[in-house]
Amino acid sequence: MQPKRLSVLGVGLLGGSIGLAVKSILTDCTVAGYGHRPETLDRALARGAIDEAYVDPRQAVQGADLVVLCTPVGMLESVFDQIAPALALGALVTDVGSTKRRIVAHARKYPGVRFIGSHPMAGSEKRGVEFAQADLFTGAKCVLTPNESPEADALAAVDAFWRLLKMETCYMPPEVHDWMIANISHVPHAIAAALVTMQDGSSLSLAGKGFADVTRIAAGDGGLWRDIFVENEDNLRLGLQRLQQVTQTLLDHLARGDGEAVKAWLEAAAERRQSLVTPSPSPGE
Amino acid sequence: MQPKRLSVLGVGLLGGSIGLAVKSILTDCTVAGYGHRPETLDRALARGAIDEAYVDPRQAVQGADLVVLCTPVGMLESVFDQIAPALALGALVTDVGSTKRRIVAHARKYPGVRFIGSHPMAGSEKRGVEFAQADLFTGAKCVLTPNESPEADALAAVDAFWRLLKMETCYMPPEVHDWMIANISHVPHAIAAALVTMQDGSSLSLAGKGFADVTRIAAGDGGLWRDIFVENEDNLRLGLQRLQQVTQTLLDHLARGDGEAVKAWLEAAAERRQSLVTPSPSPGE
Repeated sequence: MQPKRLSVLGVGLLGGSIGLAVKSILTDCTVAGYGHRPETLDRALARGAIDEAYVDPRQAVQGADLVVLCTPVGMLESVFDQIAPALALGALVTDVGSTKRRIVAHARKYPGVRFIGSHPMAGSEKRGVEFAQADLFTGAKCVLTPNESPEADALAAVDAFWRLLKMETCYMPPEVHDWMIANISHVPHAIAAALVTMQDGSSLSLAGKGFADVTRIAAGDGGLWRDIFVENEDNLRLGLQRLQQVTQTLLDHLARGDGEAVKAWLEAAAERRQSLVTPSPSPGE
Repeated sequence: MQPKRLSVLGVGLLGGSIGLAVKSILTDCTVAGYGHRPETLDRALARGAIDEAYVDPRQAVQGADLVVLCTPVGMLESVFDQIAPALALGALVTDVGSTKRRIVAHARKYPGVRFIGSHPMAGSEKRGVEFAQADLFTGAKCVLTPNESPEADALAAVDAFWRLLKMETCYMPPEVHDWMIANISHVPHAIAAALVTMQDGSSLSLAGKGFADVTRIAAGDGGLWRDIFVENEDNLRLGLQRLQQVTQTLLDHLARGDGEAVKAWLEAAAERRQSLVTPSPSPGE
């Protein structure tokens, strides 16, 4: 779909980038932004990420044909509750949350709202509209997580919107999404943070390029990740247990003095990593 | 020191980069390279990383005033044994190994050899002289690990050599080095590999920039890292236990439903990571 009036609720890195992207692609779309703090809205206006600014989400969604919830996941439900009565007839609602079970279940309480959950997998450890980019989503993956009986038109329209932003879309149930994302994103985030925390100052002074790469994501916003970890705790716990098992295999090979098995363990990981088609690394800090 | 005749034993990424760096800085230094395979030596000659090529390390060190051992750590001792009788009088010997206890202890068996252990902390997951760069060492740290009674002149000369390559040098005992490096490099490497290994194919298909950053180092050479893990097994094991403890703290906060503690845990890591002065990320793949 090509929205005529887009409402972006939360104008940080992701919300700001959606505004910039849409305004760079569509000439006839007005972007209304909601932000908690007026200063944030001013910066979003100054960057050209939004055309209109509101400190009340109900005003921000008025007349919008597409609403994208871009607040931290811990605030999605309360924002949803606020906007539900204010939505235009037929308006589509989606979100950018990194966890999907809770918001999809919550939306089900509002059968009149056309909601399709999304997780556009773009972003960085940077925060704020200052780091928003029109091409943040280009080429990245977007997971759509319809409930068990999605409205076909709504799903197709939300899909088309993310593809308009040049994303590759795929679908899966919210439960599957949360498990897979725990493994590929939440466990790595927890471990990156733990790798920083475990260092003493003198070890840290020896940090090189490798350590910088491994721990880059750990610089991300604490409050935002707290919400994600709290919501996806069960999957995070299970994923960390799996990581522990895999690491124990390496230690067992070492304990047995089985150098060949250690090498095979490392080479299997190296081959798998090399075969991964990945985007370029994040820009330097 | 500024060598007149430098011998580089092992002409891969590090050995090749030392050759290129020295030849870009000194006009009057001849670089003799040793390689196990003639094809590797041919490529090193073609890249201009060495001036002379030898398949026998004893020939490669003849007349050299500085010898740098650049083989995988598992081969350092046997190469040392071979070259010891062939060294020129007064020749200095150092190495680039990522573990230091074993080679420093081994060198002590040869009181006539002027050896100072080094660990230039540069490199990448790439291997081979094809990826060698004259500026690989520029601005990176180099740890020197003298034994308890180092020869002052030898230490000063090896220090001066790495500073000639624009490295920042520091000193510590081999035992301290191996523990610190286990924490800042070997544990992260093991964990990066485990993070790749734990994924199933469908999770892996969702890998984004963050996962690519976290696991980049896991693409490194399996045989080389096997040697490092085998030699530094005790410290690696202890470091992984520490990581496990730190991660358990996060899980305990989550189990208690203590969102504030989760946030504080994440923010402490984020602040620490942000304050880290780190080199630019590795080039894209």
